[in-house]
Amino acid sequence: MEKINKLAVIGIGLIGGSFALALKQSGAVERISGVGRDPDHLALALARGVVDEITRSPIEAVRNADLVLIATPVSQTAGILSEIATALKPESIIIDAGSTKLDIVKAARATLLSMFPRFVPGHPIAGAEASGVGAARAELFCGRQVVLTPEPDTGAAALQRVREIWQICGAEVSLLDAESHDAIFAAVSHLPHLLAFALVDLLAKRSNAAQLFSFCGSGFRDFTRIAGSSPEMWRDIVLSNRHSLLRELASYRGELAELERLIAAGDATAIAELFADARDTRNRLVHPATTLD
Amino acid sequence: MEKINKLAVIGIGLIGGSFALALKQSGAVERISGVGRDPDHLALALARGVVDEITRSPIEAVRNADLVLIATPVSQTAGILSEIATALKPESIIIDAGSTKLDIVKAARATLLSMFPRFVPGHPIAGAEASGVGAARAELFCGRQVVLTPEPDTGAAALQRVREIWQICGAEVSLLDAESHDAIFAAVSHLPHLLAFALVDLLAKRSNAAQLFSFCGSGFRDFTRIAGSSPEMWRDIVLSNRHSLLRELASYRGELAELERLIAAGDATAIAELFADARDTRNRLVHPATTLD
Repeated sequence: MEKINKLAVIGIGLIGGSFALALKQSGAVERISGVGRDPDHLALALARGVVDEITRSPIEAVRNADLVLIATPVSQTAGILSEIATALKPESIIIDAGSTKLDIVKAARATLLSMFPRFVPGHPIAGAEASGVGAARAELFCGRQVVLTPEPDTGAAALQRVREIWQICGAEVSLLDAESHDAIFAAVSHLPHLLAFALVDLLAKRSNAAQLFSFCGSGFRDFTRIAGSSPEMWRDIVLSNRHSLLRELASYRGELAELERLIAAGDATAIAELFADARDTRNRLVHPATTLD
Repeated sequence: MEKINKLAVIGIGLIGGSFALALKQSGAVERISGVGRDPDHLALALARGVVDEITRSPIEAVRNADLVLIATPVSQTAGILSEIATALKPESIIIDAGSTKLDIVKAARATLLSMFPRFVPGHPIAGAEASGVGAARAELFCGRQVVLTPEPDTGAAALQRVREIWQICGAEVSLLDAESHDAIFAAVSHLPHLLAFALVDLLAKRSNAAQLFSFCGSGFRDFTRIAGSSPEMWRDIVLSNRHSLLRELASYRGELAELERLIAAGDATAIAELFADARDTRNRLVHPATTLD
C-alpha cells in the first residue's frame, strides 16, 4: 500500500492513540500529528511515541495530511469537520471512529461539501472502560470488527483505501448503511450501556449502597462493567442516537413488563422457557472472546 | 475440628460437588454420599471421586450422616426436607446453598420441627454459568463469600460448626437475617440476572437476531454472561424471591423511565452527571475480581 506521508489524529485517546500506534508499528505512516484539548494528554502521547508532533489546533494538524482521523466524543465531530473543511488538501481522506453514524454522516455532508466523497465514516468495535492515550496499544484492533458506513456518493477509491488501512491495523472490516448501523448498535451496545448505568445509579442512591455493593459477585461485576465507561462519550452516543435508542428502550420496557407479569402470576413454565431460550441463543450466537467494544 | 464421619450431599452439581471436593481435599470428611436425579451425573460424580457412594434416595443418603447439604434448585428444598426429616439422626446438622433464604427457612421450620435448631441456612456467592458436577472444583469457594442467615432459635453450636466448615472450604463467612439477605440479593443478583435474560430474549425474537448478535462486542458479552445461567435454578430463584424482586423491578422501571425522559428532553448535563456518578460508584465499590456468583 502507498505510504501515508502525514496522518492527523484529532482526539488522541484510546482509539486515536491505538490507531496511530498500529499504523506506526506497521510502517504504513511517515509522520503523525496529534490534536487534543488537554496539554498533559498531548504530552503523554508525545512521550509514549504515539505521535511525532502535537498541537491544539486541528487546522494546523490537517494541513498537508493525507489521512485525518477524528476520534473525539461524537458531539465534537461536527464542529471539528466545520473547522478543518477549508484547511484540508484536496487529496486527503477523512475518517472517523464514532459509535453513531447517521448524525456524523449528516454533519460531514453539510460541512465537507465537495470533499464529502473523501469522507469514509467508520466505527471500530473496540473500546473498553479504560480510556485515554495511556491505555492505547497497537494491538487494540487485532481481530476486532470495524464497520464502515459509506454513502452512495462516497468515493470508491477512498473507501477501498480506508478498508486497507483498517486491515493493516488488524481489523475485520464490514459494511452497513448508516441507518442500519445505528439501529443495530442501539440494540446491542447503546441499550446495554444504558441499562448498566441505570442499575448502578439505582443502587448507588440507596442509603445502604455500601452494603449492597459489598455483596455483589462476578455476575454483577460483569453486568455493570460497561457502567465504568466514559460518561462524556456515552452521553454523546445516547443523545446522538436517541431516536433508535428510545425505540429500543420502549421495547425493553415492554419485555420487562411481560416478565413482571409472568413472575407475579407465578408462571414457572413460561419463565423457565424464556430463560432457556435466552441461554440457548446466547450460547449459540455470542462467541467467547473475539471482540471488544 | 472434629472430623465429619459421613457427609450427604443432595444435589451433586457445581455447588454440591465443589463442597464435597473441598472437604475431601482438606481431610475434614471420612465418607461422602451423593444424591441426584440423573444416573449419568451420579456416575460422573463417582468416577471423578467427588463422592464415595451414590444413591437416588435422599433418605438412604442422610441415614447416619453428621452433615447434610441440600444443593438443589430451591424449589426442591422443601420436598427434600420433608422427605428426610424423620430419617435424620438427632445430632446431624443440615445446611443448604440456596440463593433465597426466607422461603427455605420457612420450609425448614415447617418440616424439621424439633430438628430446626440444627438447620443452618446459607448462600455461597460462588456460582457461574458453568453448572453440573463436571464443573465442580475444590477451590470454588476460596476467597468467596458465604452468607449464613441463622434464625433466633438456630443452635449456637451448629452455627459455629457450619461457619468453620465453610471456612475450611476457603470461604469468608458473614451473617445476615433472611429478610435482609433476600432484599439485598434481589437487588445485586436476581434483578441483574432478570435484566440480562430479558435483553437476550428481546433480541433473540427479532427476525435479524443473527445479524444483531454478529455485531456484539465484549460489552454485550459481559452484560449477558449471566443469561447463560441455569434456567431451572433461576426460574426457582425469581419465583421464590418474587416479593423482593418485583419491588426491585418496579424501582428499576422507574429509573429507566427517568432516563428515558432525560434522553427525550436532550438533557446532556443530567445524563452526563448520572453516568459519571454511576461510573464513580462502580469504580469505588465494585472490586476487580474477588468474588464470583
